[in-house]
Amino acid sequence: MKKQKTAITPTRQENYADWYQAVVKGAKLASQAEVRGCMNVLPWGYQIWERIQEYMNGRFRLLEIPNAYFPMFMPLSKIQKEAEHVEGFAKECAVVTHTKLEKGADGTLVPAGELEEAMIVRPTSEMIIADYFKAHIHSYRDLPLKVNQWCNVVRWEMRTRMFLRTTEFLWHEAHTAHATKKEASTDAEAMIREYEKLAREILAIPVLIGVKTEAEKFPGAERTYTIEAMMQDQKALQMGTSHFLGQNFSKAGEIRFNTKDEKQEHPYTGSFGLTTRLLGALIMTHSDDDGLVLPPRATQSHVKIIPFIKSEEDRAEITDYCCQLKKDLEEIEFFDQWVGVICDEKDISPSEKKWDAIRSGIPIILEVGKRDIEGGTLMVRKRVGGVEKLTREKLINSLSEILEQMQHEIFEKALHFRNAHTHEATTKEAFFEIFEKENAFVLAPYCDDPKIEDEIAEKCAVTARCILPTKNDSASCIFSGKPTTTWAVFAKAY
Amino acid sequence: MKKQKTAITPTRQENYADWYQAVVKGAKLASQAEVRGCMNVLPWGYQIWERIQEYMNGRFRLLEIPNAYFPMFMPLSKIQKEAEHVEGFAKECAVVTHTKLEKGADGTLVPAGELEEAMIVRPTSEMIIADYFKAHIHSYRDLPLKVNQWCNVVRWEMRTRMFLRTTEFLWHEAHTAHATKKEASTDAEAMIREYEKLAREILAIPVLIGVKTEAEKFPGAERTYTIEAMMQDQKALQMGTSHFLGQNFSKAGEIRFNTKDEKQEHPYTGSFGLTTRLLGALIMTHSDDDGLVLPPRATQSHVKIIPFIKSEEDRAEITDYCCQLKKDLEEIEFFDQWVGVICDEKDISPSEKKWDAIRSGIPIILEVGKRDIEGGTLMVRKRVGGVEKLTREKLINSLSEILEQMQHEIFEKALHFRNAHTHEATTKEAFFEIFEKENAFVLAPYCDDPKIEDEIAEKCAVTARCILPTKNDSASCIFSGKPTTTWAVFAKAY
Repeated sequence: MKKQKTAITPTRQENYADWYQAVVKGAKLASQAEVRGCMNVLPWGYQIWERIQEYMNGRFRLLEIPNAYFPMFMPLSKIQKEAEHVEGFAKECAVVTHTKLEKGADGTLVPAGELEEAMIVRPTSEMIIADYFKAHIHSYRDLPLKVNQWCNVVRWEMRTRMFLRTTEFLWHEAHTAHATKKEASTDAEAMIREYEKLAREILAIPVLIGVKTEAEKFPGAERTYTIEAMMQDQKALQMGTSHFLGQNFSKAGEIRFNTKDEKQEHPYTGSFGLTTRLLGALIMTHSDDDGLVLPPRATQSHVKIIPFIKSEEDRAEITDYCCQLKKDLEEIEFFDQWVGVICDEKDISPSEKKWDAIRSGIPIILEVGKRDIEGGTLMVRKRVGGVEKLTREKLINSLSEILEQMQHEIFEKALHFRNAHTHEATTKEAFFEIFEKENAFVLAPYCDDPKIEDEIAEKCAVTARCILPTKNDSASCIFSGKPTTTWAVFAKAY
Repeated sequence: MKKQKTAITPTRQENYADWYQAVVKGAKLASQAEVRGCMNVLPWGYQIWERIQEYMNGRFRLLEIPNAYFPMFMPLSKIQKEAEHVEGFAKECAVVTHTKLEKGADGTLVPAGELEEAMIVRPTSEMIIADYFKAHIHSYRDLPLKVNQWCNVVRWEMRTRMFLRTTEFLWHEAHTAHATKKEASTDAEAMIREYEKLAREILAIPVLIGVKTEAEKFPGAERTYTIEAMMQDQKALQMGTSHFLGQNFSKAGEIRFNTKDEKQEHPYTGSFGLTTRLLGALIMTHSDDDGLVLPPRATQSHVKIIPFIKSEEDRAEITDYCCQLKKDLEEIEFFDQWVGVICDEKDISPSEKKWDAIRSGIPIILEVGKRDIEGGTLMVRKRVGGVEKLTREKLINSLSEILEQMQHEIFEKALHFRNAHTHEATTKEAFFEIFEKENAFVLAPYCDDPKIEDEIAEKCAVTARCILPTKNDSASCIFSGKPTTTWAVFAKAY
């Protein structure tokens, strides 16, 4: 059988890792920066990030979490204090030691103006925001105090991969302080539900909501909530976390407040964050061998119009028609935005434009030629769901519905895929047998003992992704044999 | 006469610089960060920056300038190449030399993992975006190419002041490449007009649009456009610049394209940017001795409702009323947004809340007590324009108009102030006499010779702010006596 031609080489089957890089490149989502481990997030990639920001900012407004901006430098002594985190972040942070460059003996520039105390570029703003909390929390009247920031952070990575793991990345980090344990704990859980909603409603990614095991939880957290998705190589990707920090964070940061009955207490805090890693998840969940597939709600541009000009004398007529069509389509509401339309008038062949558009994952392509105008119908090429011939009027009346349908199909496909590769194991043997056959999500009764996870990781590079709070059946831990009611999902992971 | 009590100490008269810091603090716009020269942009300050972003992003969409994100690190060798800028930026940049921290002999952390080549934190992304242009511009078909990014940049400053001059600041920087000189030059001018519109329509700041003199223009630019505003101490503040760079930038970056007739040419480029300095301008243009004054279009929150609960038994009724009022007011459209309402339910006295609100510059304060509810009228306390008693219905019907009126008054007041302190000088003597009497904008015929500006600066710390393209009367340069048709505005400046 002749191999079908694909827009992306290699295919997923041939080489999944290289396919991923080729999709990123083909859709112009990002490119390698000169500094190792950093990336240029190109306009087509950044507009997806902006959609995520826009959606989350809408939620933050409703939840009364204001945005702010904290400095990206902190004194070295600051990280020294945070004993519990030092090990992790200190191993991989950018250290600023000088404040200028001077010409050396050979005329080349060399660092000069050495700082008395070196600074580090934030790997997280936790410690800086602790100071903010300390300065603004005095009384129960000041609680809850919530703040969010969208910013860049740096963690020195040795092995990097576009969006999934880069030295500099973009994220939001929100921090909250509460007067009671219950409020803080409830809030942390509510936020992971927000993330699940973002994944489901915008990115069309089905995720599991779970709690991290003792071994995997954030250092300093009492409980870490997570959302976990399955990529097309059946590996797991952690898409976002929300931490209930108890009083650990406020004790370390010496944050105190006067209660209503005039006692001094440490507030209960939480934090949660999402990174540009989400774009990696989006790419790996939906894309195919022709390139990116964008769920319509995850993009600001939904339609690309490609004028098909065979003869110069038709140019004006076709261009005018496309212009008007763009205007009319942009009047259409879709979910929480307006339909976005690009009219590609570049001086390259329509076929080249079409393949560009397919690789970029734009939901709808409209090729408009003289015959289409005369016939009054348009070829509607859907990135998912084939080609359809519609009258101009019908297109305008049904575009929003077509996009919704596509969003739904993309989600269902991903859900079906995940379900097909999710298994239950009630014995240790069954557990390892599954992973010998394929990458998968394996749900098993588990007694949550870090030593067991070390052993599993050694044996087959599988980690506990999360404990599923929705499953409480009494069973025996398949590793220790101890009775348990907690079930965990295991998988190979990014 | 007894001195009137003000919410801000000292007053503008008493000490302008300290008044500025007190306004920033009183309105909770920003606070000093632990690292010298950096600031925490607090939620109330950041929401103004977000308004600016939102407005500008709307304009960028119309102008087809997409957003992207480029890395903040660049190799030291990169700045070495850019001969013309090196002097400027090399003197004040953060240099990253290490990639981790390790415990030293005494147990404290010390920088480790030294980089073979040091990196600098972007003072501007010009050189990084040159690489982007180089990679994406091959043919006339790829032009114009435009890109913008919102990000943080670092320039090591010795004397810093909140918003006006900080080591780390936020900005947008847009870069454009064009096939023809005319297009690039026209675009650079169009962008300064966009900035003027932002200043006028959103920030209510009247600005002069001008061209920088030879001495003041951006190194490497053929022409630098600027907008200049007058602060309440009658000093000038440069609010934004747009540069026409000719082929200087594309030659240095080795950017080339094939023209339609298959020749190799360097594109013509431009760049333009705005920084968080705008918040400094906003504060210093409008605020008074009671604190910040916010033009309604420059804020996301327009109204603060303060419930006035004298007796606990009224709490439920008053709270419900305030909640409903908030909802109703938030249904009102205002300019390009919806009215934003804060209901201050904090457990502190209404009078404390009121002064908080005044210092924060919120346009409208509504104090709601039992009597107001019963009487069906509300006290509408405008930050500018006094107090008015309105029925609930009347308030809802006229709120948008009240805010527009306030926006207008704030602009007119600033314009009147600037005009009152703008003078023409047609002799050198008259010129210096004015500056002996007061800080001012002085318009004078000027032959644009850098040496003259050096002399003036030495004599009285006055700089040429810009050449006014709208004034072309034939005259003699007041410094050199040479005939000229260019007139420049001089002032002391931030």
